Amino acid sequence: MTVERTKVCIIGSGPAGHTAAIYAARAELQPVMLEGWMANGIAAGGQLTTTHEVENFPGFPEGILGGEICERFRAQSLRFGTKIYSETVAKVDLSSRPFHVYTDEREVVADSIIIATGAVARRLPFPGSDEGPGGFWNKGISACAVCDGAAPMFRNNPIAVIGGGDSAMEEAHFLTKYGSKVYIIHRRDELRASKIMQKRALEHPKIEILWDSVVEEAYGNAKGMLGGVKVKNLKTGAVTDVPLAGLFFAIGHEPATAFLAGQLELDEDKYIVTKPESTETSIPGVFAAGDVQDKKWRQAITAAGSGCMAALEVERFLEDHGEA
Amino acid sequence: MTVERTKVCIIGSGPAGHTAAIYAARAELQPVMLEGWMANGIAAGGQLTTTHEVENFPGFPEGILGGEICERFRAQSLRFGTKIYSETVAKVDLSSRPFHVYTDEREVVADSIIIATGAVARRLPFPGSDEGPGGFWNKGISACAVCDGAAPMFRNNPIAVIGGGDSAMEEAHFLTKYGSKVYIIHRRDELRASKIMQKRALEHPKIEILWDSVVEEAYGNAKGMLGGVKVKNLKTGAVTDVPLAGLFFAIGHEPATAFLAGQLELDEDKYIVTKPESTETSIPGVFAAGDVQDKKWRQAITAAGSGCMAALEVERFLEDHGEA
Repeated sequence: MTVERTKVCIIGSGPAGHTAAIYAARAELQPVMLEGWMANGIAAGGQLTTTHEVENFPGFPEGILGGEICERFRAQSLRFGTKIYSETVAKVDLSSRPFHVYTDEREVVADSIIIATGAVARRLPFPGSDEGPGGFWNKGISACAVCDGAAPMFRNNPIAVIGGGDSAMEEAHFLTKYGSKVYIIHRRDELRASKIMQKRALEHPKIEILWDSVVEEAYGNAKGMLGGVKVKNLKTGAVTDVPLAGLFFAIGHEPATAFLAGQLELDEDKYIVTKPESTETSIPGVFAAGDVQDKKWRQAITAAGSGCMAALEVERFLEDHGEA
Repeated sequence: MTVERTKVCIIGSGPAGHTAAIYAARAELQPVMLEGWMANGIAAGGQLTTTHEVENFPGFPEGILGGEICERFRAQSLRFGTKIYSETVAKVDLSSRPFHVYTDEREVVADSIIIATGAVARRLPFPGSDEGPGGFWNKGISACAVCDGAAPMFRNNPIAVIGGGDSAMEEAHFLTKYGSKVYIIHRRDELRASKIMQKRALEHPKIEILWDSVVEEAYGNAKGMLGGVKVKNLKTGAVTDVPLAGLFFAIGHEPATAFLAGQLELDEDKYIVTKPESTETSIPGVFAAGDVQDKKWRQAITAAGSGCMAALEVERFLEDHGEA
């Protein structure tokens, strides 16, 4: 097994990881990035690689393909001297510094670590839900209303949100700006959302809640985009056809923290806990940036900002320890 | 005077203001941006317009000119329906909602406000210090070591930092990665910096402090770039020639908050106080993003991230008040 020594090891390769790499590399820290190999079922680059067009990352007025902006991030990290390995981290040992990070092929010994492994939006596995042949992911199905809601295909067309919590209510409300009608498809006969969010959804003229309901399958329209879903009522067994231009999963996110095996403080939803206004974790020398520590903003640009912060904090940490 | 009604008025036009505008406009809030007209002595676009090449904004692996990325931000805000006026805000009335924002030509009445007016790095006005003819600003003179220190022109050449506080020590230390030698030019015979930062600077083999010293003028080299400075010792009156490839001001920043006339809570350095992990200010409905509320990170990418947060918080605020 190859052993590699570095001042800073960056785990993850989304906007947070690459912004951290750009800043750390320009500060001559020669970062080593483990970008992953289909880590969490996603290509290196993270959630952005699963989106089609990105319209809200500042600097790209014409929009840019998710895969293309990831390529640009990566090229920029490489330009300033980041070493990138396409390997997924299997385990870490954070018990003392230098820390140890293991992939199947390599051991990285690092004075500091930036964890930017992200999170994955939960999706349901009914027929037509994914990106494979016959699936409508990115062809009407999404997991981010703020990112994708403004797309022309949704304007004045019926849209649905799957979920029953606060974020499902919020996404549904947000989508009323665009859609002719917004269904909330919820498997139970009551919502988990807070009272105020429920009230707002129940009273909105464009929102209709389909109770006790699950999506059985999604089907296409003549253009090969999402055309609608078959919805089954779990109490009556009846299956209804609901024509839709858009379907948004709002059933939560899964932060990629399992590989930490309890060595860092996580919150109740398994996100890494960072100090306020900082990327410091519960272990000095270990920093976290991007969605793996953020359940509030979850945008590419906010992740990138926190990646920059992590690199600046690593730089200061190493300086304080005479290791910069 | 024209009166304009809006859900959200964005004051400022740097990365924070435009990212806020992109998000607010895509959320159908039809933001009005007052981008300024040589506000704080800088063109619309803010501090980025005063830099030459930007290498650390993720997404631009080849680097991009400061002016060009500002143009791209602006085009993206316009694309989604932001109304932009090239006017500087003279005063605001935040005493009740809707708020009132005044330029010389216009009154904007707004349900919410995002303040993103930025800050300006302090510079000293000696001959050769500015961007005019015979000046070396961006030709060796800068106010941001993290941004510009890695430029090839500084490698293995002498560099100087002007200042005596913690950030001057930090910038000097950072620049030792690149320069053959780093002078700290300080007008007094003791430093304002904390003991530990002083110690680190005093003990560093590459750092030399020029005490009781001020720069009298900067001069060029054969290529028209900074060649050095004349330094005067205030105690002896002696003038020394110090050849330099780089000169960095580290004498603080001035946030652009004077127009608020005490209506919002500011900290001791006149930065807007925001709640932790939020862009909320002391007045509900008024949000602040970017350098005007940030004295820690001060990077274009962190400003952009906070602009996104401000727009998402405005969206939620307006929804909570039935105004979205």
